[in-house]
Amino acid sequence: MSIANPYLMFLGDAPDQLAAKTANGVAKWRPEWCVGQLRLPGCQADIGLQDMTLEEGVAAGAKTLIVGVANQGGFLPENWIATLEQALDLGMDVASGLHMRLTDLPGFGEKAAKLGRSLFDARHPARDFSVGKGNKRTGKRLLTVGTDVSVGKMFTSLAIEKEMKARGMNADFRATGQTGIFIAGSGVSVDAVVADFISGSAEWLSPDNDADHWDLVEGQGSLFHASYAGVTLGLLHGSQPDAIVLCHEPTRPHMRGTPQIPMPGLQAVIDANIAAGRLTNPNIRCIGVSMNTSALSADEADTVLRAVESELGLPCVDAFRQGAGRLVDALD
Amino acid sequence: MSIANPYLMFLGDAPDQLAAKTANGVAKWRPEWCVGQLRLPGCQADIGLQDMTLEEGVAAGAKTLIVGVANQGGFLPENWIATLEQALDLGMDVASGLHMRLTDLPGFGEKAAKLGRSLFDARHPARDFSVGKGNKRTGKRLLTVGTDVSVGKMFTSLAIEKEMKARGMNADFRATGQTGIFIAGSGVSVDAVVADFISGSAEWLSPDNDADHWDLVEGQGSLFHASYAGVTLGLLHGSQPDAIVLCHEPTRPHMRGTPQIPMPGLQAVIDANIAAGRLTNPNIRCIGVSMNTSALSADEADTVLRAVESELGLPCVDAFRQGAGRLVDALD
Repeated sequence: MSIANPYLMFLGDAPDQLAAKTANGVAKWRPEWCVGQLRLPGCQADIGLQDMTLEEGVAAGAKTLIVGVANQGGFLPENWIATLEQALDLGMDVASGLHMRLTDLPGFGEKAAKLGRSLFDARHPARDFSVGKGNKRTGKRLLTVGTDVSVGKMFTSLAIEKEMKARGMNADFRATGQTGIFIAGSGVSVDAVVADFISGSAEWLSPDNDADHWDLVEGQGSLFHASYAGVTLGLLHGSQPDAIVLCHEPTRPHMRGTPQIPMPGLQAVIDANIAAGRLTNPNIRCIGVSMNTSALSADEADTVLRAVESELGLPCVDAFRQGAGRLVDALD
Repeated sequence: MSIANPYLMFLGDAPDQLAAKTANGVAKWRPEWCVGQLRLPGCQADIGLQDMTLEEGVAAGAKTLIVGVANQGGFLPENWIATLEQALDLGMDVASGLHMRLTDLPGFGEKAAKLGRSLFDARHPARDFSVGKGNKRTGKRLLTVGTDVSVGKMFTSLAIEKEMKARGMNADFRATGQTGIFIAGSGVSVDAVVADFISGSAEWLSPDNDADHWDLVEGQGSLFHASYAGVTLGLLHGSQPDAIVLCHEPTRPHMRGTPQIPMPGLQAVIDANIAAGRLTNPNIRCIGVSMNTSALSADEADTVLRAVESELGLPCVDAFRQGAGRLVDALD
């Protein structure tokens, strides 16, 4: 079940640009799917699309209204609901990345069903999964792994997809979080799956495929994060990657959310992922490092990238500044 | 919220002894909590307790009827329902280890609420959890880990609790699966928790305690099981054990449920658990091995136990045949 595009991006009355991070990611990676943005009075976010009403969005071809904005608590505020209901009336589907489900809005699920519209809650799995089987599947897979959360794993996977498609390669980004799901049009929020089915959901996400096809699986968490490592390990086992790319943010002093735990060394993270990943793919290898150097000057970034490249003996790039060309080269 | 004891053990019309495995475990480890067994016509299981009607169970002091029987699909069959409803009428709580929730029986939750009775679905978390924080807690913790699923982790944890209590030590078994939850009277089915909260649920399960107190946490799965390793890693991080005991079944040719994956070496399993466990407890150590040698003769078992003890340089016991004394000795 895919989210129909093109999208009209709903920003609500987002108090700042950061609150519209999800919408921003969709607009960056799928500009061809985004007909415009819909902002309510007071909205302080702007993702650079044309402002539109619902009617203008429909006229521009929008099939789904994407609630691409976060707020404290993840709920759907009262003053957004009329817009969401009107979207259904005008023939659009509605998709949300909030914690609160669209179907938890009184009467909203019934209204959508009556009108024949689809609702997507990207943070909540819409189906049941089997337990992982660990069998080798056909096709090739690349998983981004990280020293920590929020170090650029989704960004790196998408940059690799973009580079591969530019080269005419057979590749698909596979989404494991809500922003990625809007960008891919489908996927699974793996951290919201029942624990028994983590690896099973990852197996479902990248099924058998052509021998030359690459699934570019969006990583989650870190094997070294005390909150989320279970998700990371199940995703690694279920994705059975042939290749991993290590993602890192070089200025972070400690693990995000657990200040007492220091950042692990890059080689230690590679080694732990390779050791664990061998269970379902004995040929797993690390092909490079992707650093988010946005907090550094160009000169500082260059120094850090060269130092890590020399230390690890692997291509080390900032996919935002330099693209993912050298990572894709390393797959040969 | 604890399950009130003593229990009347409901075996339904279980087709064989194995179907009553959960009830059997409760009767073995908490005989003082089990007033009797209630069997329907056709029941082929017998856990060695006195047969009783509901009325006789109540007269004997039973506070909770435990549905300690499994069946294909995990549902509650029609012909059990009258008994469960009558238990509520007679003043008992009802607890079930089936996949299907008691509250999914039409009208059953309402009936219980009206009568002021409690329902417990041991396979389903009854509360929300926070994400794990990774902070060191007071008190001491021992976690059983395994080469595979179903190798005696619950049994070993309970044998250690029994030995510690016999020595007057301050210790509690902490349950992470449905049979364990009936035995402890509380706990969390960690494999049924939403993936983001695995380590958080384990932190909740063994909170701060007295400096001399041991939490004996029931392990789940294996870091080397392609289906469940995510659960295992989150449980390890959240339990932050000071000590682990490796559990193993020496005659098993491959991982249960994934026949293409061979059993890992014992030292490799110890090393992987120690390496991962250091994230939340740098002082983690493996204090011994617990082997389920029930498939071997006494002589064969003796040979295997000696060989592993010599190979690993750690106490190696069959807790069923020999008790857990040497494991508890190794904590000094």
